[in-house]
Amino acid sequence: MIKIIMHGCNGKMGQVISDLVKADKEAEIVAGIDSKDSIDNGYPVFTDITKCDVKADVIIDFSIAKAVDALIDFAIEKSMPLVLCTTGLSEAQIKKVEDASGIIPVLRSSNMSLGVNALVSIAKAATEILAKSNYDIEIIEKHHNQKVDAPSGTAIMFAEAINEVLNNTYSYNYDRHESNDPRPKEEIGMHTIRGGTIVGEHSILFAGQDEVIELKHTAQSKAIFANGSIKAAKYLTKKSSGLYDMNNVIFG
Amino acid sequence: MIKIIMHGCNGKMGQVISDLVKADKEAEIVAGIDSKDSIDNGYPVFTDITKCDVKADVIIDFSIAKAVDALIDFAIEKSMPLVLCTTGLSEAQIKKVEDASGIIPVLRSSNMSLGVNALVSIAKAATEILAKSNYDIEIIEKHHNQKVDAPSGTAIMFAEAINEVLNNTYSYNYDRHESNDPRPKEEIGMHTIRGGTIVGEHSILFAGQDEVIELKHTAQSKAIFANGSIKAAKYLTKKSSGLYDMNNVIFG
Amino acid sequence: MIKIIMHGCNGKMGQVISDLVKADKEAEIVAGIDSKDSIDNGYPVFTDITKCDVKADVIIDFSIAKAVDALIDFAIEKSMPLVLCTTGLSEAQIKKVEDASGIIPVLRSSNMSLGVNALVSIAKAATEILAKSNYDIEIIEKHHNQKVDAPSGTAIMFAEAINEVLNNTYSYNYDRHESNDPRPKEEIGMHTIRGGTIVGEHSILFAGQDEVIELKHTAQSKAIFANGSIKAAKYLTKKSSGLYDMNNVIFG
Amino acid sequence: MIKIIMHGCNGKMGQVISDLVKADKEAEIVAGIDSKDSIDNGYPVFTDITKCDVKADVIIDFSIAKAVDALIDFAIEKSMPLVLCTTGLSEAQIKKVEDASGIIPVLRSSNMSLGVNALVSIAKAATEILAKSNYDIEIIEKHHNQKVDAPSGTAIMFAEAINEVLNNTYSYNYDRHESNDPRPKEEIGMHTIRGGTIVGEHSILFAGQDEVIELKHTAQSKAIFANGSIKAAKYLTKKSSGLYDMNNVIFG
Repeated sequence: MIKIIMHGCNGKMGQVISDLVKADKEAEIVAGIDSKDSIDNGYPVFTDITKCDVKADVIIDFSIAKAVDALIDFAIEKSMPLVLCTTGLSEAQIKKVEDASGIIPVLRSSNMSLGVNALVSIAKAATEILAKSNYDIEIIEKHHNQKVDAPSGTAIMFAEAINEVLNNTYSYNYDRHESNDPRPKEEIGMHTIRGGTIVGEHSILFAGQDEVIELKHTAQSKAIFANGSIKAAKYLTKKSSGLYDMNNVIFG
Repeated sequence: MIKIIMHGCNGKMGQVISDLVKADKEAEIVAGIDSKDSIDNGYPVFTDITKCDVKADVIIDFSIAKAVDALIDFAIEKSMPLVLCTTGLSEAQIKKVEDASGIIPVLRSSNMSLGVNALVSIAKAATEILAKSNYDIEIIEKHHNQKVDAPSGTAIMFAEAINEVLNNTYSYNYDRHESNDPRPKEEIGMHTIRGGTIVGEHSILFAGQDEVIELKHTAQSKAIFANGSIKAAKYLTKKSSGLYDMNNVIFG
Repeated sequence: MIKIIMHGCNGKMGQVISDLVKADKEAEIVAGIDSKDSIDNGYPVFTDITKCDVKADVIIDFSIAKAVDALIDFAIEKSMPLVLCTTGLSEAQIKKVEDASGIIPVLRSSNMSLGVNALVSIAKAATEILAKSNYDIEIIEKHHNQKVDAPSGTAIMFAEAINEVLNNTYSYNYDRHESNDPRPKEEIGMHTIRGGTIVGEHSILFAGQDEVIELKHTAQSKAIFANGSIKAAKYLTKKSSGLYDMNNVIFG
Repeated sequence: MIKIIMHGCNGKMGQVISDLVKADKEAEIVAGIDSKDSIDNGYPVFTDITKCDVKADVIIDFSIAKAVDALIDFAIEKSMPLVLCTTGLSEAQIKKVEDASGIIPVLRSSNMSLGVNALVSIAKAATEILAKSNYDIEIIEKHHNQKVDAPSGTAIMFAEAINEVLNNTYSYNYDRHESNDPRPKEEIGMHTIRGGTIVGEHSILFAGQDEVIELKHTAQSKAIFANGSIKAAKYLTKKSSGLYDMNNVIFG
């Protein structure tokens, strides 16, 4: 039974993970850390991370950037593997993560879904094959009407992974309205659809001579990120110090 | 057997129509009009419309705006119904079309496809039902990488038909990149995908609370416009003077 | 504030409705009825419907067929409008529902989603337009891998609504494997995709000469059925006796 | 300039290839072979293959099974590379092809499209990643209403490629109608949609816990098979004896 400390346990993702772990026979949450101790989670919650003295095998983190420094210090002090899912870290923090990974196992990813990370690998393979056969690449993402960033971080993750295969020679086009020119070959069209409560859909189009290949990922709930982080936690307990990402979990 | 004069017979659409009519048991092309007489069509071609003295029941036009004035004069003089498919007419020409429709039957449409016109009707009905239930509306169109106008004329046709149902209170959003605001309710997102040789795809999304309705039209070839114009020609031979559109053909 | 009695309050749908009504400013659940009183809902729960003496404006029912007879007796006795969402009623029960609708307002539907019911109307309008233009019709539905009925009740609802427009002259084809014949015109292909945890997707294809029209509904959660039933309940409190369905709510 | 002999030049695919090669600056057709010499192709046509004495670099074949034996003899005699696209060969003929590949370069594939063959590779990679994470696999194909085989040969090609990754442990399910059981894990659902003039669409669904990955190929015309065969012909002129397939062309 893997013992987990949930950092950010009373946030939206912390709660989804808490629910999922309850039904998991191989893992349990033994403590939570959150600035607010307002929910009865069935495990002790510490509002001050330095007070947490519960023994555990791994930490899962879904919190906010400013809580990450203390978290890394704590993980190093306790020699605990760390699944770090908070985004928006500063460059100094990213450096601190890298330094920590010399001492403990750290896994960091901007999207924890197994499916999304699998599709990134698949999209890179597809680009390898199709781009040299003159296929045009377009990325279309759909999310709910309350999402403020555009395009989504995941769409950018896809674009950058694809562009890496193309030696970063392609530019991004966000708006063709009134351009009045034929499509240049070396661009990736980026399209942001917003509406209703759509959880998340990402589609990558490879359009060639008389044929189109589409790779699409559809998310139904935030549980896919929770599931990915739990898998990552289990994976990390078996690893030595180092910096990991979801590809290690998928292919490891 | 309906006798057709094909105006613009040696253009791309004129040729597609010529091919399709050959296999049609109810119609035949008896003459063509085109500034260039370069192709053996199996029917006489006149480079000067005023020289055309062939008897016919109806004219189909797919030409260029500057040829339309002489065409209308010709149709009135010969008392022939006119299926007018050329786009980009001036306001003066649109007025001339309206005047002509007081004398002869004239059908004008910016998209001759039966399916597209049917979907416009369907989309208007859907808007009626769904907009008042707080569904967000997005229009996504895909075309080949040589198309220069963006969004497509057909996407605009859909948007305007939908907006009419909404009393023209919705604005169009062509680019959400770096807007950093939640989606306003009263907008229609317009998305232009370009790639390969895609003939044409139009999708209208109605995204609501936990459900999405999508209406989609996919075109495989320009034959859909040719077929629509032939159906319109047959329809118009049975009509008296007046201004018609594809809805009359579909529902008439 | 509309007062609701929730019949089947401790079932899956009863719980979703209870959650949604908590956030609703125009409605509240004042009592529940369920054979098991195992959950703290924040309202009184009666295991025996005849013991329920709480005053209310309307009943929402998501229970099981064998509980429906007592429910109808109760609704008539209390003169309460009834939103009846339980499926699998016997012919005798359907007759009893009809009789009851002579005394109280009753709304019955095999799918409570606003979107699905809207798409049924849209699909009927599309069939009217497209079937006479030789479009072939196919219905494709996708659900999770635990669903045992195939095709889904909603797919059958779409097929029957479409077939009604075609004077019930079309047959259903569930399997083309090794048929080795071209597709007959007067059939509707029915396709059952099962996988993962897909909540529900229904797509109706109209495939014609060089063009395809697709009408698609995607459900993200059971909340769409809950929302529909709450809207129906509000609607029914303003009505006199009679038999209603979701079209009345949508277009009323 | 690569000189091609087109075997089956007056069939549907032979004509498409003839048209495409006319616009190709690196290749030309120098002779055709066909049982009927009815079309003016701009190159000599031989009704008897043994009479063909035109010098060439490679043969492209789209004919019928019974013409293949003489074709192989001819290719060996002239030491010409052979792109063999005819399907439905007998076991004896397949053996003959293998023997020939010891003497001359031979490329044989049941689908000549670059995109389809690329997607087969992509689908195998996806299966590798996703099947062990409990994703269910479904294959959906759409074709025109005149196609008699079901499912399509290409759908079977996808299914077999995927099943190979799964050690051929999965069975195929063509019809779930009235099965009344939850979906077994180790099956691939095969769905045959037929309608209108759809050229060809193949979709592979990987449905997991709260997420779905879809890989889709859409064909707009038979030109994709012609283009693939021309690329294969160019590729083969640079190769020594051996048996090749489209993967060699894509990745070579």
